[in-house]
Amino acid sequence: MTPTITAFESSPDRGKGLARDMRVRWTLEELGQPYQVRTLSFGDMKQPAHLALHPFGQIPTYEDGELALFESGAIVLHLAERHVGLLPTDANARMRAIAWMFAALNTVEPPIVERSMAWIFEREQTWYAQRQAIVDERVRRRLGELSRHLGDADWLDGAFSAGDLLMVSVLLRLQSTGMVDEYPNLAAFVARATARPAYQRAFEAQLAVFLQAQAADGSSPAR
Amino acid sequence: MTPTITAFESSPDRGKGLARDMRVRWTLEELGQPYQVRTLSFGDMKQPAHLALHPFGQIPTYEDGELALFESGAIVLHLAERHVGLLPTDANARMRAIAWMFAALNTVEPPIVERSMAWIFEREQTWYAQRQAIVDERVRRRLGELSRHLGDADWLDGAFSAGDLLMVSVLLRLQSTGMVDEYPNLAAFVARATARPAYQRAFEAQLAVFLQAQAADGSSPAR
Repeated sequence: MTPTITAFESSPDRGKGLARDMRVRWTLEELGQPYQVRTLSFGDMKQPAHLALHPFGQIPTYEDGELALFESGAIVLHLAERHVGLLPTDANARMRAIAWMFAALNTVEPPIVERSMAWIFEREQTWYAQRQAIVDERVRRRLGELSRHLGDADWLDGAFSAGDLLMVSVLLRLQSTGMVDEYPNLAAFVARATARPAYQRAFEAQLAVFLQAQAADGSSPAR
Repeated sequence: MTPTITAFESSPDRGKGLARDMRVRWTLEELGQPYQVRTLSFGDMKQPAHLALHPFGQIPTYEDGELALFESGAIVLHLAERHVGLLPTDANARMRAIAWMFAALNTVEPPIVERSMAWIFEREQTWYAQRQAIVDERVRRRLGELSRHLGDADWLDGAFSAGDLLMVSVLLRLQSTGMVDEYPNLAAFVARATARPAYQRAFEAQLAVFLQAQAADGSSPAR
């Protein structure tokens, strides 16, 4: 049975691959696992049927037989544990790769999401520019620490792992800001990861969903 | 060999148990595992010796023989995987408990941390009150979703797990705001968890460190 993930019917990022289904798609592509996608509108996401799968009414979810999971970090970990390719076999190296997964999601992503949320919801406010400078400093502190750790290595700890995959996914949220480019080794890290065929396939797949929704929207005389 | 964790020499929360070493202490107590603590000043945390253990210069870290880990979520997962008591044995239930760990750290904690950071760094700013109302709404949305999921159950998914432990740790950061009390089932969930003897032991242990630092500080004529 092919597992099913959920994704936006029409991604708010307009196909830039920043929605969290992309992390799961990329993981599945790295591991060579087939999957199918069920797309949801914003309305669908808040319906009881979806809330039973995802208590916070978000995407992605993952269904495989009896198992239903939410939280992209957990889905990536589940897949990386079940299939060979995204976690080292040595027990200590495996845990360090998992530590980088948590670092991506609990240390690096939060200030980046805070920055994006402020841009979306507060950019008409009088305080926006002054306050965003504070948040930018917080983001840059994390980027600086990450850059110092990475040094001239290709990946965060040995071979490419689920930790790199999530860290790059998080850094991509800064793409439109140019902030990652201030750290050449981080920019190279992101470029190296997104050049991977598995990333490219995942990106194309999510873009196809967006373009299809847009075409359907354009052809609908009711909207 | 007894594992070593790091913690603040003098916790900025003044012994309220909100620093992230508490999550690891609580986990170790639930699992009946001994540990020792190395305390660090803010200065120590930014020195090369600590940065080699924790690239972001924070606490806690975890050292056990050849293994050195950072990120409290990863340390909790590592311990819960190695010892019986905080993850179900059934594979699917185990992954769902892990999903709740990620939900605590990547979905519920970020707006709560954003709220605290604004209180610490922006409360003298002209925009503080107006903006904090926006952030509060974001926090309440998550609390409402969590409350709806919990319903009248004791724990998030079956028996008490590492997912409950991290979720309660995150909700405790709201303690001084009274926001959790707006959701009686969440308040009961937090009360149920913090009444556990393992939580109590961990709380006392971190408080003892703070009180000791305070006493040492008071007796030092140079400060």
